[in-house]
Amino acid sequence: MYIEKINGPEDVKKLSNNELTSLAAEMRQVLLKRASIHGGHFGPNFGMVEATIALHYVFESPKDKFVFDVSHQTYPHKMLTGRKDAYLYEEHYNDVSGYSNPEESDHDHFVIGHTSTSISLACGLAKGRDVRGESGNVIAIIGDGSLSGGEALEGLDFASELQSNLIIVVNDNDMSIAENHGGLYQNLKLLRETNGQAECNLFKAMGLDYVYVHEGNDIPALIKAFEGVKDSVKPVVVHIRTLKGKGYKLAETHKEEWHWHLPFDIETGEVIADFGGEDYSSVTCDYLMKKMKEDPSVVTITSATPTVMGFTEDKRKEAGRQFVDVGIAEETAVALASGIAKSGGKPVYGVYSTFIQRTYDQLAQDLCVNGNPATILTFSASIYGMNDVTHLGIYDIPMMANIPGLVYLAPTTKEEYLAMLDWSIAQTEHPVAIRVPGGAFVSDGKAVTKDFSKLNKYEITKQGSKVAIIGLGSFYGLGVEAAEALKESTGIEATIINPYYITGLDEAMLEDLKANHDVVITLEDGILDGGFGEKITRFYGASDMKVLNFGIKKEFLDRYDVNDVLKDNHLTVEQIVDDVKKCL
Amino acid sequence: MYIEKINGPEDVKKLSNNELTSLAAEMRQVLLKRASIHGGHFGPNFGMVEATIALHYVFESPKDKFVFDVSHQTYPHKMLTGRKDAYLYEEHYNDVSGYSNPEESDHDHFVIGHTSTSISLACGLAKGRDVRGESGNVIAIIGDGSLSGGEALEGLDFASELQSNLIIVVNDNDMSIAENHGGLYQNLKLLRETNGQAECNLFKAMGLDYVYVHEGNDIPALIKAFEGVKDSVKPVVVHIRTLKGKGYKLAETHKEEWHWHLPFDIETGEVIADFGGEDYSSVTCDYLMKKMKEDPSVVTITSATPTVMGFTEDKRKEAGRQFVDVGIAEETAVALASGIAKSGGKPVYGVYSTFIQRTYDQLAQDLCVNGNPATILTFSASIYGMNDVTHLGIYDIPMMANIPGLVYLAPTTKEEYLAMLDWSIAQTEHPVAIRVPGGAFVSDGKAVTKDFSKLNKYEITKQGSKVAIIGLGSFYGLGVEAAEALKESTGIEATIINPYYITGLDEAMLEDLKANHDVVITLEDGILDGGFGEKITRFYGASDMKVLNFGIKKEFLDRYDVNDVLKDNHLTVEQIVDDVKKCL
Repeated sequence: MYIEKINGPEDVKKLSNNELTSLAAEMRQVLLKRASIHGGHFGPNFGMVEATIALHYVFESPKDKFVFDVSHQTYPHKMLTGRKDAYLYEEHYNDVSGYSNPEESDHDHFVIGHTSTSISLACGLAKGRDVRGESGNVIAIIGDGSLSGGEALEGLDFASELQSNLIIVVNDNDMSIAENHGGLYQNLKLLRETNGQAECNLFKAMGLDYVYVHEGNDIPALIKAFEGVKDSVKPVVVHIRTLKGKGYKLAETHKEEWHWHLPFDIETGEVIADFGGEDYSSVTCDYLMKKMKEDPSVVTITSATPTVMGFTEDKRKEAGRQFVDVGIAEETAVALASGIAKSGGKPVYGVYSTFIQRTYDQLAQDLCVNGNPATILTFSASIYGMNDVTHLGIYDIPMMANIPGLVYLAPTTKEEYLAMLDWSIAQTEHPVAIRVPGGAFVSDGKAVTKDFSKLNKYEITKQGSKVAIIGLGSFYGLGVEAAEALKESTGIEATIINPYYITGLDEAMLEDLKANHDVVITLEDGILDGGFGEKITRFYGASDMKVLNFGIKKEFLDRYDVNDVLKDNHLTVEQIVDDVKKCL
Repeated sequence: MYIEKINGPEDVKKLSNNELTSLAAEMRQVLLKRASIHGGHFGPNFGMVEATIALHYVFESPKDKFVFDVSHQTYPHKMLTGRKDAYLYEEHYNDVSGYSNPEESDHDHFVIGHTSTSISLACGLAKGRDVRGESGNVIAIIGDGSLSGGEALEGLDFASELQSNLIIVVNDNDMSIAENHGGLYQNLKLLRETNGQAECNLFKAMGLDYVYVHEGNDIPALIKAFEGVKDSVKPVVVHIRTLKGKGYKLAETHKEEWHWHLPFDIETGEVIADFGGEDYSSVTCDYLMKKMKEDPSVVTITSATPTVMGFTEDKRKEAGRQFVDVGIAEETAVALASGIAKSGGKPVYGVYSTFIQRTYDQLAQDLCVNGNPATILTFSASIYGMNDVTHLGIYDIPMMANIPGLVYLAPTTKEEYLAMLDWSIAQTEHPVAIRVPGGAFVSDGKAVTKDFSKLNKYEITKQGSKVAIIGLGSFYGLGVEAAEALKESTGIEATIINPYYITGLDEAMLEDLKANHDVVITLEDGILDGGFGEKITRFYGASDMKVLNFGIKKEFLDRYDVNDVLKDNHLTVEQIVDDVKKCL
């Protein structure tokens, strides 16, 4: 196979057009086999095989610099830049990350996993090149789905200010993860339908030059286009039309389902290990669907990740105008929720913890300063969530819980979660966020009668003495286990507390604990710095109470083993008990 | 005067075209007098007088809802909606805030002070109206300068999804605070020059209908245009050309200087009380100007607020291509800085604390995950900073300092500030932010020899015992005063510590303090929740050390008196000493 002999872009340049086309076919076979065994991003990579080959054929990476947006479409790029073994051989599948990574190769310039950043980052590389008097092309490669994000649109607008070389390749497969949403997609459609000739052109309106390539999966056409813009002395957009999932029929047809995929059977496309059963996505969807039917003013909002709330295509259709996908536009999602709440509607915005990071100012200004009663659900806010460095969900508490006015809740079970959601939608006083638990799905069947409108009232679930254990959200169960182990080891019956509220202290209860407790410990499924536990510790700062905060230290983790991380952070039951015993 | 009889929009509707024009002239006189005595936003309001009159003439506020972007152009709107007295009579000047405010009037729907939010918020109002089966127009009013912000561009893109009534008035005065930057402004220029007829049209490319009004300061022309779009059943942009500062020659000519203005003499335009002298803006500009001349790879970046770093128009010209204004596009500013640093350049991004809130994810992902050595300067991060609820600068520590990988520094004097800046620009290991001190400008002339590359090394500036005072950044001086008062009151010579580093603990020093100290206090010029002091308290949680954290409680403050806030938060010297004594 040609691919076996590709050790870097220089080997790509040696091949003829026919050989390059064969290479593309080989790469697809390799990607298909790996995906079927290993899982990962599928559609984005299958669509980009030819464009990646053409980019490496025309440009001189790493002197010419590629910046891949989201970078989950870099598998072909990695295969051509000295990392083919990680795709060819099963024993090497884990040698590479799923995103661009400068630690792996000089051909990668940034660790990127969030969308819509490539143009602005590439502007930086270009500006740095210019002030340092260097040369070389800078090429941002961005999918159409990522264009709706604020940072991408800012970057498109700013790029023309550079007045020097910058090439923006827009990979237009007419899809985000789900279908695209937003007016600009009408313009991309118009451009595709007019072979790029329509006068009304978003990119030209942003002050940029523009080239269209209708056959974005045809290597000679792409090479011609890239050669035409190479060494351009001003920013230019190359708009290429590609087919998402190209080369695997099921992925071409069911683009959303095959954007990312678990390991599967190549013949049937069926997932090899299906987890199935109830989970927080399915209960969220079931609940909201029922609620929306009862109340036409309930609106469910997603920013291009509808299935995190269980809203597959059929469910979205069923919800009709009460389900809004803003596209990749998290800032607008929060502002929209605030506006809907202001007008008397009942918005629920579901979002991954890692992506709500894109909305600090919208949470603070658009929502909390205004005190509008919107509901936000943060998913995968847990050490048990996604484990790529770019997709960690363990920073949400410091980011969100220190914003005044927000009520941030941490349920420990399905029943608490749904009770909180029910309360939040009904109430009209506060912006509310709910930290959907990570880790195991816990359902104890207990009816929840708590009145959540009495803010910051914790609950003693087991009265004990000497030691009090405050277990927040998904680490409540760990607290219960630690209490049992402590009893076994020392005979001490610890008090166990479910705090429910991340954003405030139950000062009366904490004060009462002083009477017959010497040690308070806090447990949280997130980083310690700026988190929940520190607030408890501050409360006791001037007292004799000993306080231990358990959680994760402030650092960037990458592709970790959960058990290793727990051990490193003294989060095993044994370690917790040992630490407590040292305080007694 | 007509204005004296305007108690609400219904009174505007009674006037003839000629009377409305007279009303506009009166309103300008009133605005001019008030601005000359009270100060405030000038240019934005002077340009919007006619449009505001026409809006209230045509639409039925508050059933029809206006959402003003930034909302510092709402003075005319306030004058026409029952709040004229706050503009007519000096004793009532402080009755209103400088921004829209639902607590003042039903004609205001949001508290808004940051740019680029109006379209997305208005989309929310429109969506809420639709699902609730209500009627009425929703009108977002946004200036051209705000269009470059990511949230505004997201909103423009999303709006067409509504498929119902939404009117976006683009107030185009060809200016941001300073001149506009970005490619889209070429398109606005083209539209102005073609009377709105150019085929290439940003708004149409976003899927929106479009109307152009060349005479945006002419009431009949505006009335006609607004009547044309009233009750539109789909989103439409009304692009109006206005003159910033219209009606006051100096403001028309020197638009940047007159965007916001201190009280001034109407005849000469001269500021009545000029503070003058050295401040952190001027020393920043002087330093960076020198540095840029020495090193062509140093790049100063602003997001449309160049003068916070002292870069007035002449200085910007002098800096040439080493000064970059990205426009109102904070996200792109951070990504740009990361890219420049990655390519070997030396970027310095200066930004108000309240606006860096718009970049949490860019700080975390684009910058810190990548570990690129960019420098960020946060200004007005202090209780002594801007005091409108929308412009508070006291939340930056929880937001920024809990992001892994960032080195956030807190200088206490000019000399430390410049030494940190010098180190940050030279080093190549870390993303660095510097919290420019608020409050009094302190310069002690002392040479700073500290090696900042040895991270998290605090300094004992005065060795004492029993009590240790850790005074962060601009509250270091308060710590010194408290130490003196404590000595006077108790005879105790406290240890005084300058921590320098917000983002990490000097664990060795903190450990050593245990030997001969019983109480540690922390002082920080920001909110306590998620802040610096809590990390110190956590360190001592399991020990016998008593720790008191002094800072500001988590809440939204608005137009406050600093001394009141300090008192409310136990931040006077007397209160601090009293609290310490209770612990001894």
